[in-house]
Amino acid sequence: MVVARLARLLSRHKILGACVLAVAALLLFNAPSIIKVAHAEEAPAPAAGAAAADTGFHYFEFMHSAKYSDAERAALFGTLVVAFAGLAYAAMLMKQVNAADKGTAKMQEIAAAVREGADAYLKRQLTTVAILIGVLVIVLYVTKAMAVNDFGDHFAIGRAAAFLMGATFSALVGFVGMRLATTGNLRVAAAAPVGFGKALMLGYRTGTITGMLTDGLGLLGGTLIFMTYGERAYEALIGFGFGGTLLALFMRVGGGIYTKAADVGADLVGKVEKDIPEDDPRNAATIADNVGDNVGDCAGMAADIFESYEVTIVAAMILGYIAFGHKGVIFPILVRAIGVFASIISTYLVRAGDKGNVAEAMKSINFGFIVGSFLSVVGFIVLGAFYLHNLDYHGLDPHIPGWASLGSTSLDMRPAYACLIGVILCVALNKCTEIFTGTEYSAVKGCYKNCTTGHATNIIEGFAVGYESAVWTALILCTAIAGSVLIYSGTVSPIWIAYGVAMCGIGMLTLTGNTISMDVFGPVADNANGIGEMGYDRKAMGEEKYKEARQILSDLDAVGNTTKAVTKGVAIGSAVIAAVSLFASFITVIGSGGAGEEKPLPLSLFNHVAEMLTISNPRILVGMLIGGSVPLLFSSMTIRAVGRAAYLIVNECRIQFRDKEIWAGTKKPDYGRVVRICTESAQKELVGPAFLAVFSPVLVGFLLGPLALAGFLAGSIVVGQLLASFMCNAGGAWDNAKKMVEDEPRDLEANTGKGSEKHKASVTGDTVGDPLKDTAGPAINPLLKVMNMVAILTVPMMVVFDDKVVERVKAGAEAAKYELPKNFGENPNSMVMYGAIIISLVALGWAIWQSKREAQMGGGE
Amino acid sequence: MVVARLARLLSRHKILGACVLAVAALLLFNAPSIIKVAHAEEAPAPAAGAAAADTGFHYFEFMHSAKYSDAERAALFGTLVVAFAGLAYAAMLMKQVNAADKGTAKMQEIAAAVREGADAYLKRQLTTVAILIGVLVIVLYVTKAMAVNDFGDHFAIGRAAAFLMGATFSALVGFVGMRLATTGNLRVAAAAPVGFGKALMLGYRTGTITGMLTDGLGLLGGTLIFMTYGERAYEALIGFGFGGTLLALFMRVGGGIYTKAADVGADLVGKVEKDIPEDDPRNAATIADNVGDNVGDCAGMAADIFESYEVTIVAAMILGYIAFGHKGVIFPILVRAIGVFASIISTYLVRAGDKGNVAEAMKSINFGFIVGSFLSVVGFIVLGAFYLHNLDYHGLDPHIPGWASLGSTSLDMRPAYACLIGVILCVALNKCTEIFTGTEYSAVKGCYKNCTTGHATNIIEGFAVGYESAVWTALILCTAIAGSVLIYSGTVSPIWIAYGVAMCGIGMLTLTGNTISMDVFGPVADNANGIGEMGYDRKAMGEEKYKEARQILSDLDAVGNTTKAVTKGVAIGSAVIAAVSLFASFITVIGSGGAGEEKPLPLSLFNHVAEMLTISNPRILVGMLIGGSVPLLFSSMTIRAVGRAAYLIVNECRIQFRDKEIWAGTKKPDYGRVVRICTESAQKELVGPAFLAVFSPVLVGFLLGPLALAGFLAGSIVVGQLLASFMCNAGGAWDNAKKMVEDEPRDLEANTGKGSEKHKASVTGDTVGDPLKDTAGPAINPLLKVMNMVAILTVPMMVVFDDKVVERVKAGAEAAKYELPKNFGENPNSMVMYGAIIISLVALGWAIWQSKREAQMGGGE
Repeated sequence: MVVARLARLLSRHKILGACVLAVAALLLFNAPSIIKVAHAEEAPAPAAGAAAADTGFHYFEFMHSAKYSDAERAALFGTLVVAFAGLAYAAMLMKQVNAADKGTAKMQEIAAAVREGADAYLKRQLTTVAILIGVLVIVLYVTKAMAVNDFGDHFAIGRAAAFLMGATFSALVGFVGMRLATTGNLRVAAAAPVGFGKALMLGYRTGTITGMLTDGLGLLGGTLIFMTYGERAYEALIGFGFGGTLLALFMRVGGGIYTKAADVGADLVGKVEKDIPEDDPRNAATIADNVGDNVGDCAGMAADIFESYEVTIVAAMILGYIAFGHKGVIFPILVRAIGVFASIISTYLVRAGDKGNVAEAMKSINFGFIVGSFLSVVGFIVLGAFYLHNLDYHGLDPHIPGWASLGSTSLDMRPAYACLIGVILCVALNKCTEIFTGTEYSAVKGCYKNCTTGHATNIIEGFAVGYESAVWTALILCTAIAGSVLIYSGTVSPIWIAYGVAMCGIGMLTLTGNTISMDVFGPVADNANGIGEMGYDRKAMGEEKYKEARQILSDLDAVGNTTKAVTKGVAIGSAVIAAVSLFASFITVIGSGGAGEEKPLPLSLFNHVAEMLTISNPRILVGMLIGGSVPLLFSSMTIRAVGRAAYLIVNECRIQFRDKEIWAGTKKPDYGRVVRICTESAQKELVGPAFLAVFSPVLVGFLLGPLALAGFLAGSIVVGQLLASFMCNAGGAWDNAKKMVEDEPRDLEANTGKGSEKHKASVTGDTVGDPLKDTAGPAINPLLKVMNMVAILTVPMMVVFDDKVVERVKAGAEAAKYELPKNFGENPNSMVMYGAIIISLVALGWAIWQSKREAQMGGGE
Repeated sequence: MVVARLARLLSRHKILGACVLAVAALLLFNAPSIIKVAHAEEAPAPAAGAAAADTGFHYFEFMHSAKYSDAERAALFGTLVVAFAGLAYAAMLMKQVNAADKGTAKMQEIAAAVREGADAYLKRQLTTVAILIGVLVIVLYVTKAMAVNDFGDHFAIGRAAAFLMGATFSALVGFVGMRLATTGNLRVAAAAPVGFGKALMLGYRTGTITGMLTDGLGLLGGTLIFMTYGERAYEALIGFGFGGTLLALFMRVGGGIYTKAADVGADLVGKVEKDIPEDDPRNAATIADNVGDNVGDCAGMAADIFESYEVTIVAAMILGYIAFGHKGVIFPILVRAIGVFASIISTYLVRAGDKGNVAEAMKSINFGFIVGSFLSVVGFIVLGAFYLHNLDYHGLDPHIPGWASLGSTSLDMRPAYACLIGVILCVALNKCTEIFTGTEYSAVKGCYKNCTTGHATNIIEGFAVGYESAVWTALILCTAIAGSVLIYSGTVSPIWIAYGVAMCGIGMLTLTGNTISMDVFGPVADNANGIGEMGYDRKAMGEEKYKEARQILSDLDAVGNTTKAVTKGVAIGSAVIAAVSLFASFITVIGSGGAGEEKPLPLSLFNHVAEMLTISNPRILVGMLIGGSVPLLFSSMTIRAVGRAAYLIVNECRIQFRDKEIWAGTKKPDYGRVVRICTESAQKELVGPAFLAVFSPVLVGFLLGPLALAGFLAGSIVVGQLLASFMCNAGGAWDNAKKMVEDEPRDLEANTGKGSEKHKASVTGDTVGDPLKDTAGPAINPLLKVMNMVAILTVPMMVVFDDKVVERVKAGAEAAKYELPKNFGENPNSMVMYGAIIISLVALGWAIWQSKREAQMGGGE
């Protein structure tokens, strides 16, 4: 029945088609090695320890291994069903949205122009990226295969295939999210005359489609990889995570540069130079500005949150196996399945009456979130009570306290509790962001008041607000991490502690469906408002209806601003949680001599290696300082990139304005040229920051060694979190302070409302905040994760060049009777090291030079 | 002869009197215990290990111990002579400056008003601080005495007395620096009509007085402590360092708030509201604004650099003993003596012709610096070659490479090489800061160009510049640290590596005399320019002479802007270097069971403890996140404090403007009221940030344990350095971009020069940068050092509450046969822990509440 339904859906929906394709790729890639395995079984068993990675591995082991109960097998298939149910729900909503009224011809024309621009951008981006992804697939395959000296190695193939799948899924989510936003905004605008409730529902459901796609694909990917590789899924999972994060970085940076370049460019030439209103059709940059909202806020953000969803499950699955055996892997998958289920129900509940308002909409959206949280928590507590019995503690004393065993002799509820902390963390981060960026709180009011005394005081107050918000965000994250650690206090294994933190991340992103719905709703409502403004036929609608519909769209826009801002804290929080938990993975890779997580590292060996990473080693402090400076350099680069791209747009618009017919409004400007400039600039500009993300960990690791690389990661997490929170929240506060000034009655004598000096000061704040909150700030999340993944992937190559580390790992392995790869640390090929250092230096040098060279031209005239 | 000269100087100079007083205090404090020691020698020897701290200690041991050669004794006394020579040189210059022409009565009147305000502020501040210092002296004495259970303990007394000495010296340097600036500015203004060379020399020498005072007192303090306590100087040195940093924090924060509150307040009410020029005498805030330059830029900065000078020598001396025995301590003292000598010569060389200009002045100042560097480098290389023979390696293999032994069998030049790296680091940091804040480089030009397109683009460009500058500063520091570490690569002791880093800090601050001269020259020239503007008698001077003199003052102002900005990087760099090297000290304190550095910790025990500080422990990452957020919270607090204080000033000025006679210019406004408001606000506002600095490490250490505290320190260093560089350099770039616009010919049509829209945009940048570069940014340096000192002082109390740490230290000590204090870790009094947590929570809660409560009132109307 499931298959029949699948086939039916498949034939109708491109998205499903694409994801099935990715899955097929995974299997196809494995085909040669499946055959090879069949042969290997006939051959004599390899000498013990010769190739540990090859010993006794079978695909789809969970189907016949005695370790798994039938209930577990059923649950895994059930998870697949839930994943497809999520996708099916997305398909259903898509049908609803597509079927909705599309409004007047003029509205459709505007929407079509925006859509066309957005499609062009994404197609261009995906084409460029596809080449890079192709190259990386080969690099990942070859490096792994060379490391184990076997070009048919299952894990070399699995890693490359999973990387492709992760990247494809991430791109798909971004692409679909954006397409739908450009479909949904038109429908919302058309629904507004019908009533508030209808418009809200359409807008929110447009977001939900992307949300459920994220949920479904994320769950599908993780589950399939586990089904395929079983307890040896590590290599494939790392590839899956890397693919997702890398794509997200491209989408975030490219989209972020596009949207703000178009915005700033359009404003500079329109508002500042020519003194014409924001959406004046004579301004050639208008359409690009609207396109930007979609490629930045929808495509970039959807890919970003998909990646967070993916990396947290990757971290939990990797740690789960080495911590507690296969139950530690299946539990997070099942928790995610519960989350998808809860999201389906709770997002469907969001609705409002025809005469609704901002408060009612917010109440309904929040109600949906609370219902979802409640369902999830109940779900995974019940699941835990049934499932978390007789975990595999690898012979260590589990030390289960009474509040975790609940009186049972075999129960260990601690992973479920860690999830609970994650749910609370998510709610707390949302609230914290709201307090610093919501108009009803003192932070934004402070900026608003400081606009009275001028541009500078508004900016200064924003600094204070942003700094403080970063502190509270950090403290909330610290509390959650400390809580997750405390759950396992008294136990001996640091891996269990890391697993607790990873499960906190799982809990935190349980309601990703709802989070993305809220997020995407922002730009959809924003665009719908724009389409209404430009496209409504005032005469045909009648004055009363027109005003009513416009008010509804304006209200929805306000709701979207709030929901969009509020969820930003979760993204950067997920980077910190994932990075903290992945530290254990980093050490395991070093301790196992680069063999990864194929078999649990003995506790003594793990500790023996972990103890090298002491902050009393100046080398690690140097790594931390370098790592901490990367988010700043990255921000500097992206901020400058926006400036350069905006400058090109200003130039183009100036040229078009010189055409007297365009200026008179009798000839349509060439919107497409500006869209093309934006597209090309964004493509070009994202290379430098991407190089920084990929090559800086490679350079540090090869030049200063794997220990400095660990410090590098720690430093980048600490500074990255603080900087991202600062930039996002200061930007959000300035944005809403401007909104508060604009909502005042206009009175130039009293210095209030639009056009007043106060308003000008507030616009300065908003403009300063734009590249901070929409380009640099949110891109730090994928930056941190890409650096983390690159570090884990490359550290096996670096570790062999550090004699002290090699010596220590060998000594520890001998003491613990752990078998290292046979040729670990013997005569490493120093050409690899020099090659990597030179390539990284050239790439980074080019990136920095590029970012500076054009800056002068950009600011030049 | 020396004594006679001392007495003569003493009778004439208050400063010398005060410092002799402080030295006397040190001896006085020790009097009872000297008596006690005499008794103890009669009593039977204490049981082995009963009170390790008391075994066989004698004051002034270096005088009779066989360990010291006569040459060493002579060198130590020689160092005292150099220290006094530095002070005598300062006294000589002071006489020169005092004797110089004081200009017209009107000039003297203005200078007197400024001086009066500055004196009032500092007296008020020192009175308040004196109480706190008194309390802390008692706290330090009692806690240490209780820990060793002996109220006559030499080290309890020594620590408290040294703390008092450190605080007194720091206050003295700040006070004198400021007094002299208010003396020198008048003389410089009076000398300008005579010629460029005379004015430059007077201004630079005014700075040199403070510089030599810093050199002399810093050297005196360190040498005296070593002479008194010999190889057991640890406790006293820590006290000395803490006293200096704490005072510097007060002076920096208080002065920073004062100067920017007065500046912003005067501008808001004068320029913005009333549209009158900057130094209009009707504005009641004018004098306060000038006072601010002195209390912030002179007093605050001088105390700050004194503290850096002090903490680096403290770090080197502490590590020197446990690394290489007494030679490791004496070497940095002698290097400093060479530096003082080089500064005396090289600062005396700075002069220019009567028709000099900016370029000639810069050339001469830079020439002085280069000569000083050359003399120092030659000096300590020669010293090293003679002195660094037969170091005490505590039985470890020194592994001296050929480039360090230079063919000799006993020579080890590595400490001297580390100093050399420090000198290069200092030059590199100066250059780096210059590149990002100098008008001839692309960073400032970028901001300048971006002023054309408005307020927002200027601010955005400043962000990019500031971020990038922080990255390069970090990379320079990393290179220096890595270089210092590399010198000792291949050796086994992490203490040697830490000593290398500490010696890099010694080298970096060798030319503190020149650095402070350059720094103080900035505000002196600035004030002289102001006095010239307001006080010159145009008619009496004649039009030509007047213009010439004004041009000279304007040129000197420009020179001062450059020299002042350039040296800022060194201060924050010193914090990083000192903190990195002090990490080893932190671990030694834990490893010795809180006994400090009284005897070298066995290598195995040190490593055993250091290995606990692994960043793979989430608790340490939590500490890092919290530590990283402190500089942001601190900045947010100080930025808000400026806003609140400025608001009070605006209110007062508004009230005075309502007096029609004042507005008409016929009645002198009450400048004193504004000065008093500034003074009181600054006093009040510095309490919150100071509480944050002192109590946040206490809270983290007691609540999350000593390991989290180590993470806390590491996180604060990384974020603090980046944030401070960002804020100082962005602020500097905005400041100079404004200067570039102001130097353009005024043409409102072409949008250039004063009064244009471009100028307004540049003023916004400058105003935003003001609290960043003059309040929050520079205060991060003492913040980091205070937190470091508090952590080292309190960690012995924290460590006993962490069972795991106690267990590990005990196991390590047993294995290494190291004797821990008898009752280490036994039944700690948990009331101490709860008490400390509660007090810290209350103090921090109050500080945060205070910072938020008034913010609303401040921004209120």
